[in-house]
Amino acid sequence: MSEDRLAAVEARLALLEDERDVARAMASYGPLVDGGDADGVAALWAPDGVYDIDEIFLAGAERIREMVRSPAHQGWIRQGCAHVVGPPHITVEGDAAVAVCHSLMVVRDEGRYVVRRATANHWRLRRTEAGWKVVTRTNRILDGRPESPALLVRGVRGEPAGP
Amino acid sequence: MSEDRLAAVEARLALLEDERDVARAMASYGPLVDGGDADGVAALWAPDGVYDIDEIFLAGAERIREMVRSPAHQGWIRQGCAHVVGPPHITVEGDAAVAVCHSLMVVRDEGRYVVRRATANHWRLRRTEAGWKVVTRTNRILDGRPESPALLVRGVRGEPAGP
Amino acid sequence: MSEDRLAAVEARLALLEDERDVARAMASYGPLVDGGDADGVAALWAPDGVYDIDEIFLAGAERIREMVRSPAHQGWIRQGCAHVVGPPHITVEGDAAVAVCHSLMVVRDEGRYVVRRATANHWRLRRTEAGWKVVTRTNRILDGRPESPALLVRGVRGEPAGP
Repeated sequence: MSEDRLAAVEARLALLEDERDVARAMASYGPLVDGGDADGVAALWAPDGVYDIDEIFLAGAERIREMVRSPAHQGWIRQGCAHVVGPPHITVEGDAAVAVCHSLMVVRDEGRYVVRRATANHWRLRRTEAGWKVVTRTNRILDGRPESPALLVRGVRGEPAGP
Repeated sequence: MSEDRLAAVEARLALLEDERDVARAMASYGPLVDGGDADGVAALWAPDGVYDIDEIFLAGAERIREMVRSPAHQGWIRQGCAHVVGPPHITVEGDAAVAVCHSLMVVRDEGRYVVRRATANHWRLRRTEAGWKVVTRTNRILDGRPESPALLVRGVRGEPAGP
Repeated sequence: MSEDRLAAVEARLALLEDERDVARAMASYGPLVDGGDADGVAALWAPDGVYDIDEIFLAGAERIREMVRSPAHQGWIRQGCAHVVGPPHITVEGDAAVAVCHSLMVVRDEGRYVVRRATANHWRLRRTEAGWKVVTRTNRILDGRPESPALLVRGVRGEPAGP
Protein backbone atom coordinates (compact mmCIF):
# COMPACT_ATOMS: atom_id res chain seq x y z
CA MET A 1 0.00 0.00 0.00
CA SER A 2 2.60 2.50 1.12
CA GLU A 3 4.85 1.26 -1.67
CA ASP A 4 2.17 2.14 -4.19
CA ARG A 5 1.67 5.54 -2.65
CA LEU A 6 5.40 6.13 -2.71
CA ALA A 7 5.65 5.07 -6.34
CA ALA A 8 2.86 7.51 -7.24
CA VAL A 9 4.70 10.30 -5.42
CA GLU A 10 7.91 9.47 -7.25
CA ALA A 11 6.17 9.66 -10.61
CA ARG A 12 4.57 13.04 -9.81
CA LEU A 13 7.89 14.35 -8.54
CA ALA A 14 9.67 13.17 -11.69
CA LEU A 15 7.20 15.10 -13.83
CA LEU A 16 7.82 18.31 -11.88
CA GLU A 17 11.56 17.75 -12.26
CA ASP A 18 11.20 17.23 -15.99
CA GLU A 19 9.23 20.46 -16.30
CA ARG A 20 11.84 22.25 -14.22
CA ASP A 21 14.64 20.92 -16.42
CA VAL A 22 12.88 22.03 -19.60
CA ALA A 23 12.16 25.49 -18.16
CA ARG A 24 15.75 25.77 -17.00
CA ALA A 25 17.13 24.92 -20.44
CA MET A 26 14.84 27.53 -22.00
CA ALA A 27 15.76 30.16 -19.39
CA SER A 28 19.44 29.69 -20.13
CA TYR A 29 19.15 30.48 -23.85
CA GLY A 30 18.84 34.26 -23.52
CA PRO A 31 21.69 34.73 -21.01
CA LEU A 32 23.98 32.38 -22.96
CA VAL A 33 23.30 33.90 -26.38
CA ASP A 34 23.61 37.47 -25.09
CA GLY A 35 26.71 36.33 -23.23
CA GLY A 36 28.25 35.05 -26.46
CA ASP A 37 28.76 31.55 -25.06
CA ALA A 38 28.61 29.65 -28.34
CA ASP A 39 29.34 26.27 -26.79
CA GLY A 40 26.79 26.80 -24.06
CA VAL A 41 24.08 27.75 -26.55
CA ALA A 42 24.91 24.84 -28.86
CA ALA A 43 24.79 22.40 -25.95
CA LEU A 44 21.11 23.23 -25.39
CA TRP A 45 20.34 21.41 -28.64
CA ALA A 46 20.70 17.74 -29.47
CA PRO A 47 23.64 17.26 -31.86
CA ASP A 48 21.17 16.88 -34.74
CA GLY A 49 18.78 19.50 -33.36
CA VAL A 50 17.32 22.28 -35.48
CA TYR A 51 16.84 26.00 -34.92
CA ASP A 52 14.35 27.12 -37.52
CA ILE A 53 14.10 30.92 -37.59
CA ASP A 54 12.22 32.91 -40.20
CA GLU A 55 15.16 33.81 -42.36
CA ILE A 56 17.60 31.07 -41.44
CA PHE A 57 17.46 27.35 -40.87
CA LEU A 58 20.21 26.08 -38.59
CA ALA A 59 20.48 22.29 -38.89
CA GLY A 60 22.66 20.82 -36.16
CA ALA A 61 24.28 22.16 -33.03
CA GLU A 62 27.40 23.08 -35.01
CA ARG A 63 25.44 25.59 -37.14
CA ILE A 64 23.98 27.09 -33.97
CA ARG A 65 27.48 27.46 -32.51
CA GLU A 66 28.58 29.28 -35.67
CA MET A 67 25.58 31.61 -35.48
CA VAL A 68 26.64 32.76 -32.01
CA ARG A 69 30.20 33.28 -33.25
CA SER A 70 29.17 35.08 -36.41
CA PRO A 71 30.14 38.73 -36.92
CA ALA A 72 26.45 39.61 -37.10
CA HIS A 73 25.66 38.16 -33.67
CA GLN A 74 28.86 39.49 -32.11
CA GLY A 75 27.86 42.88 -33.45
CA TRP A 76 24.57 42.73 -31.57
CA ILE A 77 26.42 41.97 -28.36
CA ARG A 78 28.73 44.95 -28.85
CA GLN A 79 25.77 47.18 -29.65
CA GLY A 80 23.86 46.00 -26.57
CA CYS A 81 21.28 43.26 -26.90
CA ALA A 82 18.78 41.34 -24.76
CA HIS A 83 17.04 38.22 -26.03
CA VAL A 84 14.20 38.05 -23.52
CA VAL A 85 12.59 34.60 -23.65
CA GLY A 86 9.18 34.77 -21.96
CA PRO A 87 7.74 32.43 -19.34
CA PRO A 88 7.21 29.03 -20.95
CA HIS A 89 4.13 26.85 -21.17
CA ILE A 90 5.44 23.29 -21.04
CA THR A 91 3.87 19.93 -21.83
CA VAL A 92 5.92 16.83 -20.97
CA GLU A 93 4.83 13.41 -22.17
CA GLY A 94 7.25 10.64 -21.36
CA ASP A 95 10.56 11.41 -23.02
CA ALA A 96 9.24 14.23 -25.20
CA ALA A 97 8.23 17.80 -24.42
CA VAL A 98 6.63 20.70 -26.26
CA ALA A 99 6.96 24.24 -24.99
CA VAL A 100 5.80 27.61 -26.20
CA CYS A 101 6.64 31.19 -25.32
CA HIS A 102 7.15 34.66 -26.71
CA SER A 103 10.56 36.18 -27.17
CA LEU A 104 11.58 39.81 -27.55
CA MET A 105 14.83 40.90 -29.13
CA VAL A 106 15.68 44.22 -27.50
CA VAL A 107 18.62 46.19 -28.90
CA ARG A 108 20.32 49.40 -27.95
CA ASP A 109 19.74 52.29 -30.29
CA GLU A 110 20.95 55.81 -29.64
CA GLY A 111 20.94 55.56 -25.87
CA ARG A 112 17.55 53.89 -25.61
CA TYR A 113 16.40 50.39 -26.45
CA VAL A 114 14.05 49.26 -29.16
CA VAL A 115 12.17 46.01 -29.58
CA ARG A 116 13.50 44.77 -32.89
CA ARG A 117 11.49 41.57 -33.01
CA ALA A 118 8.59 39.99 -31.14
CA THR A 119 8.49 36.32 -31.96
CA ALA A 120 6.42 33.16 -31.41
CA ASN A 121 8.66 30.35 -30.10
CA HIS A 122 7.75 26.67 -30.37
CA TRP A 123 10.16 24.18 -28.79
CA ARG A 124 10.34 20.41 -29.09
CA LEU A 125 12.70 18.68 -26.66
CA ARG A 126 13.56 15.11 -25.85
CA ARG A 127 15.08 13.39 -22.88
CA THR A 128 18.63 12.20 -23.60
CA GLU A 129 21.42 10.73 -21.52
CA ALA A 130 22.77 14.27 -21.23
CA GLY A 131 19.44 15.65 -20.04
CA TRP A 132 16.65 17.41 -21.93
CA LYS A 133 17.83 18.71 -25.29
CA VAL A 134 16.13 20.82 -27.95
CA VAL A 135 15.17 18.79 -31.02
CA THR A 136 13.52 21.62 -32.94
CA ARG A 137 12.98 25.24 -32.02
CA THR A 138 10.75 27.07 -34.43
CA ASN A 139 10.62 30.86 -34.29
CA ARG A 140 8.21 32.95 -36.34
CA ILE A 141 8.03 36.71 -36.08
CA LEU A 142 4.68 38.16 -35.00
CA ASP A 143 4.14 40.51 -37.92
CA GLY A 144 0.75 39.36 -39.13
CA ARG A 145 1.86 36.26 -41.04
CA PRO A 146 -0.71 33.58 -40.18
CA GLU A 147 1.79 30.89 -39.25
CA SER A 148 2.96 32.73 -36.12
CA PRO A 149 -0.37 32.78 -34.25
CA ALA A 150 -0.95 29.18 -35.36
CA LEU A 151 2.41 28.19 -33.93
CA LEU A 152 1.50 29.68 -30.54
CA VAL A 153 -1.75 27.77 -30.34
CA ARG A 154 -0.17 24.49 -31.39
CA GLY A 155 2.45 25.00 -28.71
CA VAL A 156 -0.13 25.42 -25.94
CA ARG A 157 -1.89 22.27 -27.15
CA GLY A 158 1.37 20.33 -27.06
CA GLU A 159 1.21 19.74 -30.82
CA PRO A 160 4.19 19.77 -33.17
CA ALA A 161 5.09 22.99 -34.96
CA GLY A 162 4.35 21.81 -38.46
CA PRO A 163 0.95 20.99 -39.89
CA MET B 1 5.67 7.04 11.22
CA SER B 2 6.50 6.50 7.55
CA GLU B 3 2.83 6.99 6.77
CA ASP B 4 2.95 10.41 8.39
CA ARG B 5 6.13 11.31 6.52
CA LEU B 6 4.57 10.17 3.26
CA ALA B 7 1.43 12.18 3.91
CA ALA B 8 3.55 15.27 4.55
CA VAL B 9 5.41 14.70 1.29
CA GLU B 10 2.13 14.31 -0.58
CA ALA B 11 0.86 17.61 0.79
CA ARG B 12 4.05 19.47 -0.17
CA LEU B 13 3.99 17.92 -3.62
CA ALA B 14 0.35 18.88 -4.09
CA LEU B 15 1.20 22.52 -3.33
CA LEU B 16 3.98 22.54 -5.93
CA GLU B 17 1.57 21.01 -8.44
CA ASP B 18 -1.05 23.64 -7.68
CA GLU B 19 1.51 26.41 -8.20
CA ARG B 20 2.61 24.78 -11.44
CA ASP B 21 -0.98 24.56 -12.66
CA VAL B 22 -1.62 28.22 -11.87
CA ALA B 23 1.60 29.30 -13.58
CA ARG B 24 0.77 27.14 -16.58
CA ALA B 25 -2.68 28.69 -16.95
CA MET B 26 -1.17 32.17 -16.79
CA ALA B 27 1.59 31.26 -19.28
CA SER B 28 -0.98 30.08 -21.77
CA TYR B 29 -2.89 33.37 -21.90
CA GLY B 30 -0.41 35.27 -24.09
CA PRO B 31 0.10 32.53 -26.68
CA LEU B 32 -3.63 31.79 -26.87
CA VAL B 33 -4.74 35.41 -27.17
CA ASP B 34 -2.07 36.25 -29.74
CA GLY B 35 -2.97 33.00 -31.46
CA GLY B 36 -6.59 34.08 -31.72
CA ASP B 37 -7.86 30.98 -29.94
CA ALA B 38 -11.04 32.45 -28.48
CA ASP B 39 -12.25 29.19 -26.96
CA GLY B 40 -8.85 28.49 -25.42
CA VAL B 41 -8.66 31.94 -23.85
CA ALA B 42 -12.22 31.75 -22.54
CA ALA B 43 -11.57 28.33 -21.01
CA LEU B 44 -8.92 29.84 -18.73
CA TRP B 45 -11.71 31.58 -16.84
CA ALA B 46 -14.48 30.09 -14.74
CA PRO B 47 -17.80 30.42 -16.61
CA ASP B 48 -18.72 33.36 -14.35
CA GLY B 49 -15.15 34.70 -14.23
CA VAL B 50 -14.32 38.34 -14.79
CA TYR B 51 -11.63 40.12 -16.81
CA ASP B 52 -11.53 43.66 -15.48
CA ILE B 53 -9.35 45.84 -17.73
CA ASP B 54 -9.05 49.61 -17.43
CA GLU B 55 -11.47 50.50 -20.18
CA ILE B 56 -13.56 47.37 -20.36
CA PHE B 57 -15.18 45.00 -17.89
CA LEU B 58 -15.73 41.52 -19.30
CA ALA B 59 -18.15 39.59 -17.07
CA GLY B 60 -18.21 35.92 -17.94
CA ALA B 61 -16.18 33.66 -20.17
CA GLU B 62 -18.54 34.34 -23.08
CA ARG B 63 -17.59 38.07 -23.07
CA ILE B 64 -13.92 37.11 -23.05
CA ARG B 65 -14.47 34.81 -26.03
CA GLU B 66 -16.14 37.70 -27.88
CA MET B 67 -13.24 40.01 -27.09
CA VAL B 68 -10.79 37.63 -28.78
CA ARG B 69 -13.10 37.38 -31.81
CA SER B 70 -13.69 41.14 -32.01
CA PRO B 71 -12.50 43.06 -35.10
CA ALA B 72 -10.29 45.16 -32.79
CA HIS B 73 -8.42 42.17 -31.40
CA GLN B 74 -8.22 40.43 -34.78
CA GLY B 75 -6.74 43.65 -36.12
CA TRP B 76 -3.95 43.50 -33.56
CA ILE B 77 -3.13 39.95 -34.62
CA ARG B 78 -2.96 40.99 -38.29
CA GLN B 79 -0.80 43.98 -37.40
CA GLY B 80 1.57 41.83 -35.30
CA CYS B 81 1.11 41.63 -31.56
CA ALA B 82 2.70 40.02 -28.50
CA HIS B 83 0.97 39.99 -25.11
CA VAL B 84 3.96 39.18 -22.94
CA VAL B 85 2.76 38.08 -19.49
CA GLY B 86 5.67 38.27 -17.05
CA PRO B 87 6.85 35.67 -14.55
CA PRO B 88 4.16 35.26 -11.91
CA HIS B 89 4.32 35.51 -8.13
CA ILE B 90 1.78 32.97 -6.88
CA THR B 91 0.16 32.39 -3.51
CA VAL B 92 -1.98 29.26 -3.15
CA GLU B 93 -4.16 28.76 -0.09
CA GLY B 94 -6.32 25.68 -0.22
CA ASP B 95 -8.65 25.98 -3.19
CA ALA B 96 -7.89 29.66 -3.88
CA ALA B 97 -4.90 31.39 -5.42
CA VAL B 98 -3.73 34.96 -5.94
CA ALA B 99 -1.09 35.78 -8.51
CA VAL B 100 0.54 38.98 -9.70
CA CYS B 101 2.70 39.90 -12.67
CA HIS B 102 3.44 42.59 -15.21
CA SER B 103 2.30 42.36 -18.79
CA LEU B 104 3.55 44.17 -21.86
CA MET B 105 1.48 44.62 -25.01
CA VAL B 106 4.00 44.86 -27.82
CA VAL B 107 2.70 45.76 -31.28
CA ARG B 108 4.27 46.10 -34.69
CA ASP B 109 4.60 49.62 -35.98
CA GLU B 110 6.36 50.53 -39.19
CA GLY B 111 8.79 47.60 -39.18
CA ARG B 112 9.69 47.87 -35.51
CA TYR B 113 7.77 47.10 -32.36
CA VAL B 114 6.48 49.45 -29.72
CA VAL B 115 5.33 48.77 -26.18
CA ARG B 116 1.77 50.03 -26.27
CA ARG B 117 0.90 49.21 -22.68
CA ALA B 118 2.73 48.14 -19.52
CA THR B 119 0.19 46.82 -17.07
CA ALA B 120 -0.18 45.57 -13.50
CA ASN B 121 -1.95 42.18 -13.49
CA HIS B 122 -3.72 40.76 -10.44
CA TRP B 123 -5.23 37.28 -10.77
CA ARG B 124 -7.62 35.41 -8.50
CA LEU B 125 -8.12 31.74 -9.31
CA ARG B 126 -9.97 28.87 -7.74
CA ARG B 127 -9.70 25.13 -7.94
CA THR B 128 -12.59 23.60 -9.88
CA GLU B 129 -13.39 20.13 -11.17
CA ALA B 130 -11.91 21.27 -14.49
CA GLY B 131 -8.70 22.48 -12.85
CA TRP B 132 -7.62 25.95 -11.74
CA LYS B 133 -9.72 28.67 -13.34
CA VAL B 134 -9.51 32.46 -13.26
CA VAL B 135 -12.20 34.03 -11.09
CA THR B 136 -11.09 37.65 -11.55
CA ARG B 137 -8.20 39.10 -13.49
CA THR B 138 -7.71 42.79 -12.83
CA ASN B 139 -5.45 44.76 -15.17
CA ARG B 140 -4.47 48.39 -14.53
CA ILE B 141 -2.13 50.29 -16.79
CA LEU B 142 1.05 51.61 -15.17
CA ASP B 143 0.67 55.25 -16.13
CA GLY B 144 0.88 56.90 -12.75
CA ARG B 145 -2.64 56.21 -11.56
CA PRO B 146 -2.30 55.16 -7.91
CA GLU B 147 -4.39 52.01 -8.15
CA SER B 148 -1.86 50.20 -10.36
CA PRO B 149 1.06 50.20 -7.90
CA ALA B 150 -1.38 49.32 -5.10
CA LEU B 151 -2.63 46.37 -7.14
CA LEU B 152 0.91 45.03 -7.53
CA VAL B 153 1.59 45.18 -3.81
CA ARG B 154 -1.72 43.54 -2.90
CA GLY B 155 -0.94 40.77 -5.36
CA VAL B 156 2.43 39.99 -3.75
CA ARG B 157 0.74 39.90 -0.35
CA GLY B 158 -1.89 37.48 -1.63
CA GLU B 159 -4.63 40.01 -0.95
CA PRO B 160 -7.68 40.57 -3.17
CA ALA B 161 -7.51 43.25 -5.86
CA GLY B 162 -10.16 45.55 -4.44
CA PRO B 163 -9.98 47.47 -1.19
CA MET C 1 14.27 0.21 1.94
CA SER C 2 11.11 2.32 1.75
CA GLU C 3 12.65 4.65 4.32
CA ASP C 4 15.55 5.23 1.97
CA ARG C 5 13.26 5.83 -0.97
CA LEU C 6 11.21 8.24 1.09
CA ALA C 7 14.31 10.11 2.21
CA ALA C 8 15.41 10.44 -1.42
CA VAL C 9 11.99 11.81 -2.34
CA GLU C 10 12.14 14.30 0.52
CA ALA C 11 15.51 15.58 -0.67
CA ARG C 12 14.34 16.01 -4.27
CA LEU C 13 11.18 17.74 -3.08
CA ALA C 14 13.19 20.09 -0.87
CA LEU C 15 15.30 21.13 -3.87
CA LEU C 16 12.20 21.95 -5.92
CA GLU C 17 10.86 23.96 -2.99
CA ASP C 18 14.12 25.86 -2.69
CA GLU C 19 14.04 26.70 -6.39
CA ARG C 20 10.43 27.77 -6.07
CA ASP C 21 11.27 30.01 -3.11
CA VAL C 22 14.15 31.67 -4.97
CA ALA C 23 12.01 32.21 -8.08
CA ARG C 24 9.22 33.61 -5.94
CA ALA C 25 11.52 36.12 -4.24
CA MET C 26 12.81 37.24 -7.62
CA ALA C 27 9.29 37.49 -9.07
CA SER C 28 8.22 39.75 -6.23
CA TYR C 29 10.92 42.37 -6.87
CA GLY C 30 9.28 44.03 -9.87
CA PRO C 31 5.76 44.25 -8.43
CA LEU C 32 7.07 45.52 -5.08
CA VAL C 33 9.44 48.13 -6.52
CA ASP C 34 6.85 49.40 -9.00
CA GLY C 35 4.34 49.32 -6.16
CA GLY C 36 6.57 51.54 -4.05
CA ASP C 37 6.65 49.07 -1.17
CA ALA C 38 10.03 50.05 0.28
CA ASP C 39 9.83 47.65 3.22
CA GLY C 40 8.79 44.78 1.00
CA VAL C 41 11.66 45.38 -1.43
CA ALA C 42 14.19 45.74 1.38
CA ALA C 43 13.00 42.51 3.00
CA LEU C 44 14.04 40.56 -0.09
CA TRP C 45 17.66 41.22 0.87
CA ALA C 46 19.60 39.99 3.86
CA PRO C 47 20.17 42.90 6.28
CA ASP C 48 23.76 43.15 5.02
CA GLY C 49 22.85 42.35 1.44
CA VAL C 50 24.07 44.38 -1.52
CA TYR C 51 22.38 45.75 -4.61
CA ASP C 52 25.16 46.62 -7.02
CA ILE C 53 23.80 48.59 -9.99
CA ASP C 54 25.94 50.27 -12.63
CA GLU C 55 25.78 53.76 -11.22
CA ILE C 56 24.97 53.03 -7.61
CA PHE C 57 26.11 50.59 -4.96
CA LEU C 58 23.51 49.99 -2.28
CA ALA C 59 25.13 48.30 0.74
CA GLY C 60 22.54 46.99 3.17
CA ALA C 61 18.79 46.61 3.11
CA GLU C 62 18.40 50.08 4.62
CA ARG C 63 19.99 51.69 1.52
CA ILE C 64 17.66 49.70 -0.69
CA ARG C 65 14.67 50.89 1.31
CA GLU C 66 15.85 54.48 0.84
CA MET C 67 16.23 53.95 -2.90
CA VAL C 68 12.57 52.95 -3.20
CA ARG C 69 11.54 55.98 -1.14
CA SER C 70 13.77 58.40 -3.06
CA PRO C 71 12.20 61.22 -5.07
CA ALA C 72 13.82 59.75 -8.19
CA HIS C 73 12.15 56.37 -7.80
CA GLN C 74 8.83 57.86 -6.70
CA GLY C 75 9.00 59.98 -9.82
CA TRP C 76 9.24 56.88 -12.00
CA ILE C 77 6.15 55.45 -10.33
CA ARG C 78 4.19 58.64 -10.97
CA GLN C 79 5.37 58.72 -14.57
CA GLY C 80 4.43 55.05 -15.09
CA CYS C 81 7.05 52.36 -14.79
CA ALA C 82 7.42 48.57 -15.12
CA HIS C 83 10.52 46.75 -13.91
CA VAL C 84 10.05 43.50 -15.78
CA VAL C 85 12.34 40.84 -14.31
CA GLY C 86 12.64 37.96 -16.78
CA PRO C 87 12.28 34.23 -16.14
CA PRO C 88 15.17 33.14 -13.91
CA HIS C 89 17.74 30.40 -14.36
CA ILE C 90 18.42 29.14 -10.83
CA THR C 91 21.18 26.97 -9.35
CA VAL C 92 20.73 25.89 -5.72
CA GLU C 93 23.58 24.23 -3.85
CA GLY C 94 22.86 23.55 -0.21
CA ASP C 95 22.19 26.87 1.51
CA ALA C 96 23.39 29.04 -1.39
CA ALA C 97 21.85 29.90 -4.74
CA VAL C 98 22.90 31.73 -7.88
CA ALA C 99 20.32 33.01 -10.35
CA VAL C 100 20.49 34.95 -13.57
CA CYS C 101 17.93 36.77 -15.70
CA HIS C 102 17.37 39.80 -17.88
CA SER C 103 15.41 42.80 -16.71
CA LEU C 104 13.74 45.54 -18.69
CA MET C 105 12.90 48.94 -17.26
CA VAL C 106 9.90 50.17 -19.23
CA VAL C 107 8.73 53.73 -18.65
CA ARG C 108 5.86 55.79 -19.94
CA ASP C 109 6.78 58.51 -22.37
CA GLU C 110 4.26 60.66 -24.18
CA GLY C 111 1.46 58.11 -24.16
CA ARG C 112 3.60 55.18 -25.20
CA TYR C 113 6.25 53.20 -23.36
CA VAL C 114 9.95 53.01 -23.99
CA VAL C 115 12.51 50.50 -22.81
CA ARG C 116 14.92 52.66 -20.88
CA ARG C 117 17.29 49.92 -19.83
CA ALA C 118 17.92 46.26 -20.69
CA THR C 119 20.07 44.76 -17.99
CA ALA C 120 21.95 41.59 -17.06
CA ASN C 121 20.96 40.48 -13.54
CA HIS C 122 23.09 38.17 -11.40
CA TRP C 123 21.68 37.15 -8.00
CA ARG C 124 23.34 35.43 -5.08
CA LEU C 125 21.02 34.27 -2.32
CA ARG C 126 21.38 32.32 0.87
CA ARG C 127 19.04 30.34 3.06
CA THR C 128 18.31 32.13 6.33
CA GLU C 129 15.94 31.57 9.21
CA ALA C 130 13.63 34.04 7.48
CA GLY C 131 13.81 32.16 4.17
CA TRP C 132 15.93 32.76 1.08
CA LYS C 133 17.40 36.27 1.04
CA VAL C 134 19.46 38.16 -1.53
CA VAL C 135 23.11 38.48 -0.57
CA THR C 136 24.25 40.30 -3.70
CA ARG C 137 22.34 41.35 -6.76
CA THR C 138 24.59 42.65 -9.52
CA ASN C 139 23.00 44.53 -12.42
CA ARG C 140 24.94 45.59 -15.51
CA ILE C 141 23.32 47.35 -18.42
CA LEU C 142 23.56 45.58 -21.78
CA ASP C 143 25.13 48.41 -23.76
CA GLY C 144 28.20 46.66 -25.13
CA ARG C 145 30.37 46.84 -22.01
CA PRO C 146 32.06 43.44 -21.78
CA GLU C 147 31.19 42.79 -18.15
CA SER C 148 27.46 42.44 -18.84
CA PRO C 149 27.65 39.43 -21.20
CA ALA C 150 30.24 37.88 -18.88
CA LEU C 151 27.86 38.30 -15.95
CA LEU C 152 25.10 36.44 -17.80
CA VAL C 153 27.34 33.48 -18.57
CA ARG C 154 28.67 33.27 -15.02
CA GLY C 155 25.10 33.29 -13.77
CA VAL C 156 24.08 30.31 -15.91
CA ARG C 157 27.15 28.42 -14.72
CA GLY C 158 26.25 29.14 -11.08
CA GLU C 159 29.46 31.11 -10.61
CA PRO C 160 29.79 34.29 -8.54
CA ALA C 161 29.43 37.65 -10.26
CA GLY C 162 32.93 38.90 -9.72
CA PRO C 163 36.09 37.50 -11.22
